[in-house]
Amino acid sequence: IRQLETDSSEATREGFEHYMLKEIYEQPESIRNAMRGRLDEENATAVFGGLNLTPQQSRMVERIILTGCGTSWHSGLVGEYLIEDLARIPVSVEYASELRYRNPPIENNTLVFGITQSGETADTLAALRETKRKGHRTLAICNVVGSSIAQAADGGVYLYAGPEIGVASTKAFTSQCCVLAMLGLYFGRLRHLSFERGKQIIEELRQLPNAIQQTLGCNEQVRDVAQKYQNASTVLYLGRQFNFPTALEGALKLKEISYIHAEGYPAAEMKHGPIALVDKETPSVFIIPRGTTYTKVMANMEEVKARGGPVIALANEDDPQVQAVADDVIHVPQVPEFLQPIVNVVPLQLLAYHIALLRGCDVDKPRNLAKSVTVE
Amino acid sequence: IRQLETDSSEATREGFEHYMLKEIYEQPESIRNAMRGRLDEENATAVFGGLNLTPQQSRMVERIILTGCGTSWHSGLVGEYLIEDLARIPVSVEYASELRYRNPPIENNTLVFGITQSGETADTLAALRETKRKGHRTLAICNVVGSSIAQAADGGVYLYAGPEIGVASTKAFTSQCCVLAMLGLYFGRLRHLSFERGKQIIEELRQLPNAIQQTLGCNEQVRDVAQKYQNASTVLYLGRQFNFPTALEGALKLKEISYIHAEGYPAAEMKHGPIALVDKETPSVFIIPRGTTYTKVMANMEEVKARGGPVIALANEDDPQVQAVADDVIHVPQVPEFLQPIVNVVPLQLLAYHIALLRGCDVDKPRNLAKSVTVE
Repeated sequence: IRQLETDSSEATREGFEHYMLKEIYEQPESIRNAMRGRLDEENATAVFGGLNLTPQQSRMVERIILTGCGTSWHSGLVGEYLIEDLARIPVSVEYASELRYRNPPIENNTLVFGITQSGETADTLAALRETKRKGHRTLAICNVVGSSIAQAADGGVYLYAGPEIGVASTKAFTSQCCVLAMLGLYFGRLRHLSFERGKQIIEELRQLPNAIQQTLGCNEQVRDVAQKYQNASTVLYLGRQFNFPTALEGALKLKEISYIHAEGYPAAEMKHGPIALVDKETPSVFIIPRGTTYTKVMANMEEVKARGGPVIALANEDDPQVQAVADDVIHVPQVPEFLQPIVNVVPLQLLAYHIALLRGCDVDKPRNLAKSVTVE
Repeated sequence: IRQLETDSSEATREGFEHYMLKEIYEQPESIRNAMRGRLDEENATAVFGGLNLTPQQSRMVERIILTGCGTSWHSGLVGEYLIEDLARIPVSVEYASELRYRNPPIENNTLVFGITQSGETADTLAALRETKRKGHRTLAICNVVGSSIAQAADGGVYLYAGPEIGVASTKAFTSQCCVLAMLGLYFGRLRHLSFERGKQIIEELRQLPNAIQQTLGCNEQVRDVAQKYQNASTVLYLGRQFNFPTALEGALKLKEISYIHAEGYPAAEMKHGPIALVDKETPSVFIIPRGTTYTKVMANMEEVKARGGPVIALANEDDPQVQAVADDVIHVPQVPEFLQPIVNVVPLQLLAYHIALLRGCDVDKPRNLAKSVTVE
């Protein structure tokens, strides 16, 4: 029977050595699935079947709370940048485990989103129920159809990413970010976003699966980098604005499956403490695609170099400036800033994967962790 | 001349081996200074000379943004819990370096506090100026009288903590938290806090210097713990609610001066990734005084023990339950929950100090760090 089980799980890995790798490679497709039927060209907006909100109700929304745990909390942070940027609605992101016991003041016309892949995360479910009990409208962003949170919430958005088996979440993260981008478009188009800008965003979203496909081409490059840094015992991940949560998520992946202590920070915070960790044994991963804070992140990167720390940079191709400073460069395609987290996290997922593999860790079932945390 | 300089700085250390240690021990006094003349028994509230707000203007405040870097960002997180709890005004905490470039939507009647010990932190100053330019009222919480932020802001509150020379901030942090508690009292008494509750909070604040004095009695105990764990290469700091920022701050101290990779988390987030780091070489510091989430933190602590991780607990005296689970217990006096960060951070400052000393690090001038970061 064991043999049979192995065979059947082998089959669903579709030739990939691990579920995690398969799920990383599925991302062009899972992102397509997240967008299917939701981009409305005619009205230059996004549409969702299950929000259960009339346009009038959606217009009344004055604040948004995004809550979740772990990777889903990170996609919430991306969502904060996305929704504030596209829709100009103030967003707060809360750890679900803190929110459920904290009793914060929440204004009327606040919409609460619980984000969880499984839909069963105990803390997220409890935080959502607690805010719903207080009369706030609650929505779920989850992957598993018919899950507890889908039943508890007033409505929601499914990811349609297919089953995620690897304990370290990959495709669910990018799909959550994609859904949050579409929600930004939806709420933005109810307010100040023009028809033309809406069309442009839809076009940019449509390019996303190809950009991810192109990004996956970095796999060999990432494996070489992994080889070089596999023995590190501490790694810093640094990015700014949209790429700050990407840094947190990249660090979490490495922590989860390779047991290396990695930590993410907004790049400029480095000088207020973390840079003390930097020496020649401590690599830093900088996320530095072209964008509004490019020169600022460059300055932070040069500072780490000056302190003797090895630098791995995620940068756009043909960037001689980054090439001149960083020890190793991983190339990512250039995409609009608001979509950068979705593209830039992919090499970080692969980096964690290859390092874990080289260290002989069980990539799909890391020690001490469960796929979904259904207890407090 | 060098000799003379050494002599003079020796003198100001007043017999302490390092400025940092002196500043840790000054905290009962620096907290007294932060409160001097600011507790108004007759009206059961706090008063501040420099807020430059009429009671009418203060009542209009509908949201508060707290911004800062490093340790000051941590006191901002404590402030979020404090002000939301005492005054029921929604608070957002922003990394100054992110806020200055992010252009978030900020509603009218939002009050912005820039928190910086030196008053010269470049990112905090820039974030404050940017929000002021947009027409929001800005206030400074700083230690250095006449500093740039004191001049740039519309008003503010000084810490009166005396010069802080050690690069790792200690007494400025506790004074910032104390000022934020008094601000919570002030705004709370403009709204729903009763006279009786106001009197009680004043009484609790008045007890605080003695509680810190009592906490300093743990120094020997902390030194023993430091001896035992000085060779750790990674340490987790875990706490919930008011003690979550305390965990972040404890981890930052260790990182800054001992170069050990320490990281703080809300205790329940552990299960969503960080617990993968736990093994018999990786100690976890749990902040677990009696309070509303005591049993929850206990469950998290037991989980770490079950995974074979050594546990250091900060707990109240006579707590046999914690004693039974933790490998090492450091005792802290029992104080009301909203004041716990101010008391509980003290043993964590001492722990970082002793570990750094044992590892031969330059406690007052850690590598790669400057006392105040006046560049981006």
